[in-house]
Amino acid sequence: MHEQGSAPRGLDPIDELARRAADEVGLISFAGGLPDPKLFPRRQLSDAFLEAIHAPGAAALQYGWPEGSLELRTWIAQRLRDRGARVEPSEVIVTSGAQQAIALALATAPRRDTVAVDEESYPAALELFRTAGATLMPASAPAALYYSLPSISNPRGLRMSDGERAALLSRARSARGYVIEDDAYEGTAFSGKSSRPLLADARERVFHVGTFSKTLCPGLRVGWLVPPSRLVQRALRRKQTHDLQANSLAQELLVAYLKTDDFERLQARSRARYARKQRLVAAAARKHLPELSIESPVGGFSLWLESKRHASGEALLEAAIAEGTSFDPGESFRRAPSPRLALRLCYSAVPEADIEPGIERLSRAFRRLG
Amino acid sequence: MHEQGSAPRGLDPIDELARRAADEVGLISFAGGLPDPKLFPRRQLSDAFLEAIHAPGAAALQYGWPEGSLELRTWIAQRLRDRGARVEPSEVIVTSGAQQAIALALATAPRRDTVAVDEESYPAALELFRTAGATLMPASAPAALYYSLPSISNPRGLRMSDGERAALLSRARSARGYVIEDDAYEGTAFSGKSSRPLLADARERVFHVGTFSKTLCPGLRVGWLVPPSRLVQRALRRKQTHDLQANSLAQELLVAYLKTDDFERLQARSRARYARKQRLVAAAARKHLPELSIESPVGGFSLWLESKRHASGEALLEAAIAEGTSFDPGESFRRAPSPRLALRLCYSAVPEADIEPGIERLSRAFRRLG
Repeated sequence: MHEQGSAPRGLDPIDELARRAADEVGLISFAGGLPDPKLFPRRQLSDAFLEAIHAPGAAALQYGWPEGSLELRTWIAQRLRDRGARVEPSEVIVTSGAQQAIALALATAPRRDTVAVDEESYPAALELFRTAGATLMPASAPAALYYSLPSISNPRGLRMSDGERAALLSRARSARGYVIEDDAYEGTAFSGKSSRPLLADARERVFHVGTFSKTLCPGLRVGWLVPPSRLVQRALRRKQTHDLQANSLAQELLVAYLKTDDFERLQARSRARYARKQRLVAAAARKHLPELSIESPVGGFSLWLESKRHASGEALLEAAIAEGTSFDPGESFRRAPSPRLALRLCYSAVPEADIEPGIERLSRAFRRLG
Repeated sequence: MHEQGSAPRGLDPIDELARRAADEVGLISFAGGLPDPKLFPRRQLSDAFLEAIHAPGAAALQYGWPEGSLELRTWIAQRLRDRGARVEPSEVIVTSGAQQAIALALATAPRRDTVAVDEESYPAALELFRTAGATLMPASAPAALYYSLPSISNPRGLRMSDGERAALLSRARSARGYVIEDDAYEGTAFSGKSSRPLLADARERVFHVGTFSKTLCPGLRVGWLVPPSRLVQRALRRKQTHDLQANSLAQELLVAYLKTDDFERLQARSRARYARKQRLVAAAARKHLPELSIESPVGGFSLWLESKRHASGEALLEAAIAEGTSFDPGESFRRAPSPRLALRLCYSAVPEADIEPGIERLSRAFRRLG
């Protein structure tokens, strides 16, 4: 979006810094929530692509139904049934990534004036809720909608306990509200253990959101939404009027890929790699940034660091870019402003050898901040 | 979406018939606006895919910026400049197909309470405007938005004259309204002549919408929106909050494909084939359905047939399915209800040998309607 020689109009300052960082040669980036490109199974995806594109009828290149491929929806429904939820393929809508599934849930929900969220949550969801005119409420408040990442949270990488899940559903029931369950990081728990989705315990109160972006690759833009049964047609109609359907190419590629057993093996490989990177980044942060408190994640792509000190994450990012590193400032994740410094370090896409040098750069930026 | 043994709830009757028709073995379908799958350049797209997926960095599989690939936006901007519009790559937003570009234009326009449309127009756009709460106005009325397909209209397949274009822009100016220019069928004129987009004559009043769906293949779900310059950031922010970005895979595949000269050759081949099919379907309709009036299209995928007779297109479709053929009932295309029978026959995806038999079946259904 950069016009030559001029900053893009209308970008917020953090976006602008993120774009500047992306252009810096040699910068070590802890920003973005990107999976490790070394884990992309290019050969297997190529095989799947060739199978899909040469299939009779060429469904991969043609229009499809708005709800998406039946084979893919069947796979998604089966995975959810394996985790305890009663879901039929006809209740799954394939979306253009998890972000669209969240937007579709928001638009389909009977009410959306208030959305309860964790004190730190996924920035693009917060931005969506805000621009839609919703008031963001604390997670404990009565609200029309509850947005939550119970499997693995973002940015903290924590899993909700059974008690917390029950409490969330109970609050939603009392408020006659709905829950948007963002399951994007399911499959990234270092333990390999899957979790029971909220959907399994409140089928008619939960919009369940999933994606292949974190466990396979985000460039496909394939996610899904399982709305409460009686809202499926309403969601589907909105999906259709807004972009007809998710892209056929990636769906057919996925159908061919998921017939192999590569996906399970990939997840085991990915978990081991991300767990190792997480240990490296946590050790480096403890060593070089001892002033910041760290919460140990159980999965996901990132580490959340906080300080008692009052300072701006944006200012720290500016200093960090000057030192040759970047991260996501805590401000973007917060429901309500706080003067305390916080930051998210995404280790997922950083080469292991770059982790400690990157944290050293960040540490220098932190000292420079004074 | 079909639950076993039960009709899907909430589908409108025409959608339900369309889905029933799609399941009928041996049915000859004139429905849907689908390009001819025989024209999909599978080999060339496979080559482009393999190039894209093995590129360093694997951009095809990773997250990208919300505005889309710079190389692809540069190609799109250049094509528009060749047609007389002043467009920079930074003003192009790659979308998930043309439908999303229309939805994005609607959401970004300063006002959207009234949308002026042709008496017959693209059904999914009409449905979008209606469900967004807009009042559909005649094309000649003052309105907040004007939705138009000046290059090649749908369903009639006609090109707007210079005088009609000037009149439309003048009406929009007087009403201080904006124009959504749907350019989806550009490139399908049988003559091979491209047209000057409205964007070229009213850069700040036009949302320009394009796509690869009709000229290459729809399964990629890659289209674009060029908003008025000062609304680019607003549209981009909405795009980002609603699905982050168009799929990287198809964008990178397109970048690799468009570097070859196959696209120009494909368009020449496609035009010749669609022109031939159009002549066949028009001849068959004149022979077997002489009661219906036909307007000769200059491009596009379909023929629009009308009757002075009062009859329901939906009833005719039901009879047609029983005879083994289908089409799109005129009702879906109309701004305002009319008792007169009308239908759209899409010839694009019908094998040539099936055209006359299909029209004979339709003719039998028409007689049965009484």
